[in-house]
Amino acid sequence: MTKTHLHHVSVYYEDTDFSGVVYYANYLRYFEAGRDEYFGMDELMRMYKETGIGFAVYKAEITYREGAKFGDRLEIRTTVRQESEYRIICDQQVWRPGGAQALVKGLIHMVCVDGAQKLVALPDWVLRRLREAEV
Amino acid sequence: MTKTHLHHVSVYYEDTDFSGVVYYANYLRYFEAGRDEYFGMDELMRMYKETGIGFAVYKAEITYREGAKFGDRLEIRTTVRQESEYRIICDQQVWRPGGAQALVKGLIHMVCVDGAQKLVALPDWVLRRLREAEV
Amino acid sequence: MTKTHLHHVSVYYEDTDFSGVVYYANYLRYFEAGRDEYFGMDELMRMYKETGIGFAVYKAEITYREGAKFGDRLEIRTTVRQESEYRIICDQQVWRPGGAQALVKGLIHMVCVDGAQKLVALPDWVLRRLREAEV
Amino acid sequence: MTKTHLHHVSVYYEDTDFSGVVYYANYLRYFEAGRDEYFGMDELMRMYKETGIGFAVYKAEITYREGAKFGDRLEIRTTVRQESEYRIICDQQVWRPGGAQALVKGLIHMVCVDGAQKLVALPDWVLRRLREAEV
Repeated sequence: MTKTHLHHVSVYYEDTDFSGVVYYANYLRYFEAGRDEYFGMDELMRMYKETGIGFAVYKAEITYREGAKFGDRLEIRTTVRQESEYRIICDQQVWRPGGAQALVKGLIHMVCVDGAQKLVALPDWVLRRLREAEV
Repeated sequence: MTKTHLHHVSVYYEDTDFSGVVYYANYLRYFEAGRDEYFGMDELMRMYKETGIGFAVYKAEITYREGAKFGDRLEIRTTVRQESEYRIICDQQVWRPGGAQALVKGLIHMVCVDGAQKLVALPDWVLRRLREAEV
Repeated sequence: MTKTHLHHVSVYYEDTDFSGVVYYANYLRYFEAGRDEYFGMDELMRMYKETGIGFAVYKAEITYREGAKFGDRLEIRTTVRQESEYRIICDQQVWRPGGAQALVKGLIHMVCVDGAQKLVALPDWVLRRLREAEV
Repeated sequence: MTKTHLHHVSVYYEDTDFSGVVYYANYLRYFEAGRDEYFGMDELMRMYKETGIGFAVYKAEITYREGAKFGDRLEIRTTVRQESEYRIICDQQVWRPGGAQALVKGLIHMVCVDGAQKLVALPDWVLRRLREAEV
């Protein structure tokens, strides 16, 4: 079992399109913010500056149930599991607080790559972060 | 067999992030533009104004192989197939012209909804558009 | 004198471009969020649903001093003054907490328009909101 | 006198917000694309890779007259003049082809900065590009 990380975002004009709900690509922006906060932006930046290593998405599976609207205060729920020495899967969901089901669900498969975009093993601090979330 | 629809996009500053390549959500913007051009923006707007009906994405599966960079002139390849009375699947790929493989691949599952976000059968003109692409 | 409204945003991957700093248009997104929070999103949505009236920007003057970076926690400072029966000017600035000067400054001139994009006088609740900020 | 450079963009879902027209920050994306095409993306990339130098916006003055809508095929008109050894001003406008007036007008003030964000004189190839546009 792992703890679920919560991140909150608000829906502004910029997030919506003329159909009245949040544009489908923007949930991926919310998910990225949720992951950045899960791992910690200072840690991500430190890794990038010191080693040139960063996360890269290689697969994203998104299911859309209901559109979020201007003014919604959304909860981004993130859990992360290790798949292999190289891969993690982030299970991410968008909820209205108190809602009966997720508006949008995503499975975001990620790896780490170096400055030459070459695959590298998941760094120790990343694995430690995953273990901290175990309960 | 269906004809592949081609749409061209260029990668500008706005599309990239500080890692140097196109931000992962932005390929969904390219895919949307490819679909809009496939169906025809005048037709989409006419349907929306006259009937309140529009397309909605309910699932997106994206695979990322290689990042596009500032200055790339990309080809968005789109084929569409009908899955049921209600659903279509858009097979969409991002290519560098002359490239050996797609940079990014997507399967975008779509339905039509009315102004109350209620599912409706695929309109006739959409089905005609799919048949026009058959070869 | 008017009270300065504070809104906080974090800089994520999506906000930056390959030059390493926040893309120049994205400060306008931060400013919009600051204004939405200043007026209150529930109030803005209520006005839009009940009367079809919304704010529209007719002029924006932006000065860029320094680029914000991934991981920055920024403060959006907003003060609003009435210019006429129809117009307000939002003085908005982007600060790093504890910084010596604003990174970016904006003067955003706004009006209210109805559903036909026709100019209307500033609604009473907007004027009340401005008076609440007077000190 | 200088020749006006034309760049064409189409308005997709992603560009609009729930008010039905293009989101105000997105015209700055159109302007950036217009400038990138004016100078040439290969040349901009070559300069960045070889010298670390890139353009930076230090002031933007935008006037909004009318909102563009989904399906609009817009013309981005760009002229550029040199202000000093260090500065250029890009006069940019958004037109519907055949329209009676610009939808949006912008004056974008730009400088060149090196990799340390330090101001540098405008490179020779930039000045040559400006002279090529003189008529």
